[in-house]
Amino acid sequence: MQKIRSGTLAALLLGSLFTPVLAHAAPADSAAIRDAALKDEVAWDFTEGLTTEVGPRPAGTPQEARAREWAVAKLKALGFSNVRAEPYTMPVWLRGRDEAKILSPFPQNLVLSALGNSGSTPDKGIEGEVVYFPTLADLEAAPAASVKGKIAFVSHDMTATQDGSSYGYFGAARRQGPSIASSKGAIAILIRSIGTDHHRLPHTGVQMWADGVTPIPAAALSVPDAEQLVRVIGRGQPVKLHLTLTSKMLKDQPSGNVIAEIPGSDPAAGVVVAACHLDSWDQGTGAIDDATGCGIAAAAALQVAKAGQPRRTIRVLMAGAEEVGGDGARAYFKAHGTEKHALAIESDFGADRVWRVDFKLPQGHDALATSISAALAPLGIGASKQEAGGGADIAPLVKAGVPVIDLQQDGTRYFELHHTPDDTLDKVDLAQLRQNVAAWAVTLNLVANAQESMGIK
Amino acid sequence: MQKIRSGTLAALLLGSLFTPVLAHAAPADSAAIRDAALKDEVAWDFTEGLTTEVGPRPAGTPQEARAREWAVAKLKALGFSNVRAEPYTMPVWLRGRDEAKILSPFPQNLVLSALGNSGSTPDKGIEGEVVYFPTLADLEAAPAASVKGKIAFVSHDMTATQDGSSYGYFGAARRQGPSIASSKGAIAILIRSIGTDHHRLPHTGVQMWADGVTPIPAAALSVPDAEQLVRVIGRGQPVKLHLTLTSKMLKDQPSGNVIAEIPGSDPAAGVVVAACHLDSWDQGTGAIDDATGCGIAAAAALQVAKAGQPRRTIRVLMAGAEEVGGDGARAYFKAHGTEKHALAIESDFGADRVWRVDFKLPQGHDALATSISAALAPLGIGASKQEAGGGADIAPLVKAGVPVIDLQQDGTRYFELHHTPDDTLDKVDLAQLRQNVAAWAVTLNLVANAQESMGIK
Repeated sequence: MQKIRSGTLAALLLGSLFTPVLAHAAPADSAAIRDAALKDEVAWDFTEGLTTEVGPRPAGTPQEARAREWAVAKLKALGFSNVRAEPYTMPVWLRGRDEAKILSPFPQNLVLSALGNSGSTPDKGIEGEVVYFPTLADLEAAPAASVKGKIAFVSHDMTATQDGSSYGYFGAARRQGPSIASSKGAIAILIRSIGTDHHRLPHTGVQMWADGVTPIPAAALSVPDAEQLVRVIGRGQPVKLHLTLTSKMLKDQPSGNVIAEIPGSDPAAGVVVAACHLDSWDQGTGAIDDATGCGIAAAAALQVAKAGQPRRTIRVLMAGAEEVGGDGARAYFKAHGTEKHALAIESDFGADRVWRVDFKLPQGHDALATSISAALAPLGIGASKQEAGGGADIAPLVKAGVPVIDLQQDGTRYFELHHTPDDTLDKVDLAQLRQNVAAWAVTLNLVANAQESMGIK
Repeated sequence: MQKIRSGTLAALLLGSLFTPVLAHAAPADSAAIRDAALKDEVAWDFTEGLTTEVGPRPAGTPQEARAREWAVAKLKALGFSNVRAEPYTMPVWLRGRDEAKILSPFPQNLVLSALGNSGSTPDKGIEGEVVYFPTLADLEAAPAASVKGKIAFVSHDMTATQDGSSYGYFGAARRQGPSIASSKGAIAILIRSIGTDHHRLPHTGVQMWADGVTPIPAAALSVPDAEQLVRVIGRGQPVKLHLTLTSKMLKDQPSGNVIAEIPGSDPAAGVVVAACHLDSWDQGTGAIDDATGCGIAAAAALQVAKAGQPRRTIRVLMAGAEEVGGDGARAYFKAHGTEKHALAIESDFGADRVWRVDFKLPQGHDALATSISAALAPLGIGASKQEAGGGADIAPLVKAGVPVIDLQQDGTRYFELHHTPDDTLDKVDLAQLRQNVAAWAVTLNLVANAQESMGIK
């Protein structure tokens, strides 16, 4: 847990003395909302239902369309207002067969998963010799002649972190590795999965080809398979692989966002957007990524509504197509970016307990931050000095200057499951899920009822 | 850990007083062998080499043949005598495609793995409605009319146990479920994997069709997929599946055992057989099942040899075809059953620490058991009153009356990995592997040098 230096804490406390004291929701409200939310049934029910009755829901596919239908029906049944899907179209990459085998020196299969937007091999696959790079920097530094005509293999040393920061750093092997390998003439690229587990379940994920770069087959080996390949390479003989990574691209497929509201009493006070994403990767059922996020956002909004109509409208945004580049986020901003948004908040990092809160509020809102921090402290959540950044589905709002709060979830085990077939309901811990709902409910309640003028139009 | 009641311990200690004291290897030997074995490099090297340079090695396949070649070369290089492969032939079942999807009410894929000797579907698969049985007893009790023409689905509640006893009980769903389902007219059977993990990695394993029963497609769902199917069934609508489980049977394929010896000084004293199996299931690299067992047996024999030539020959038996029914064990017994065997011991339960020793020795060998127990105690291993039973590769010897000792390994996490793609080198813990080698080395040393007349001819 992030420790707050005593000077920082004093500053926060002093801040509340020197800021005009406004009529926030009474502290009693926070305690009551927190206690009720810790018994929440909605977040689990939503997560269980979406992952069971829809299952995987890749962006732009009929499964994602089923997810929208399911969510609209569910949110109406839960009592939300203005529930609707907001459609848009997008290009879609579809996985085919993912197969790999070592041909020599030690014939055996390897388990891997194509990355989003991977180029396709012919049906009969391709063969090539492996050239190994322990890190992305090694690939970057390699002369093109050493890569040309070969299968580049990039490893890395990602380990688990509570704040998920290792994903940002080591994830570059997935995000940039394919374009770098292609630009040096590689015929394909394999990366060690961007994950911290040791299961034969590869971590897929999107990557975007840099301008002018030719797509090549690109895939992630499971961590045990990547380690096996390193051992085989270590024997010193040339390593030849056969790869079959078939996939296809479709144009203009239907996707969409789902929106549901708790209407506020003061339309001029701006909307609080509580976001998550409805799409998932194709091989798991998207339980922690991001059915729980949608369950938390919906459940917390309902917990606030139960305590009384809020001043501001709480708008739950269940975005489409987050995993593949944020088409849903852009579509939302295009449709709603000119409305007054008081705050944006997103849950898209699993459902393990919230351990830290980060703020990015307008000047003069220290008292609001202090009251939120005080309401979160009984849940074991400490306030930080780090600036909140939001998630992918609210990124255009945040970029436009909308205030944002991050309820940071514990990511220690998140990258054991992220983007793998293993992202399933059994990984969700009910007690931690409820702690998330409670953190969200007290936060949404205080923000939605704050008397400050906040947000931008 | 199994607690020894004080009365039992007293009996063991008294036993050693009233039994003629024979010249066992001096206690100093045990301590020195134990200390050397705790720094063993051979077991890891063997395991790493076999799993890397051969990988999966299903019985009766070219990969198993490569494993024999690899093992013969390795054991010769390690200094063993009389190293050879002893061939035999056998029928072989080969996996094809394993695919399943829920067609209705909630279309989605399920992850599963065909069981050994499964019947094959046509290439285009089969369709059928699911009939659910929470336990094998429920299937047994069901009227045939409720099963006929349907896909039987049998679940169970296996949980982890240190001694692995839950496998014996709950494993019946795999061993007997298919024959029962077929005899009631099911068109296929799915079982929940006989495993204790929650990963999307199904546990395969062999099953034998009862006499007169028609083979049907038979497969294990991963535990999360089995739980998902239970949830889908729980919604109360008919559940229709599409299954593609292609496989084929081959006749008279080559398999074989590998044998290597530390020759003893007294050929008349009988052979000590130290067994493991060389074959593995097809989807993992057979690290804990059973590369480590072979590494432990070989390493321990070498540790004994380093301390001086033993009285009895130690024969390492790396059996073929254990996973699919014990063809190697039968071939060994056919070839060697008439030789005098002083003792048989097997390692085939992973490489987590040995926690208990069980004996089945001839009458009058209490002193030997006591000295072995005393030599194992510093490794945290307690002696039990349970009778040793041996493993599959020594079963014909044990049935014929050959004495046996079981160095029981901790099975708490064994069924997380057993028969899955996840059985790979990264699951092996070096410190625990070395503890196994030490336990085996002191045991083999005391048995091979015991002055008692033991064993049968």
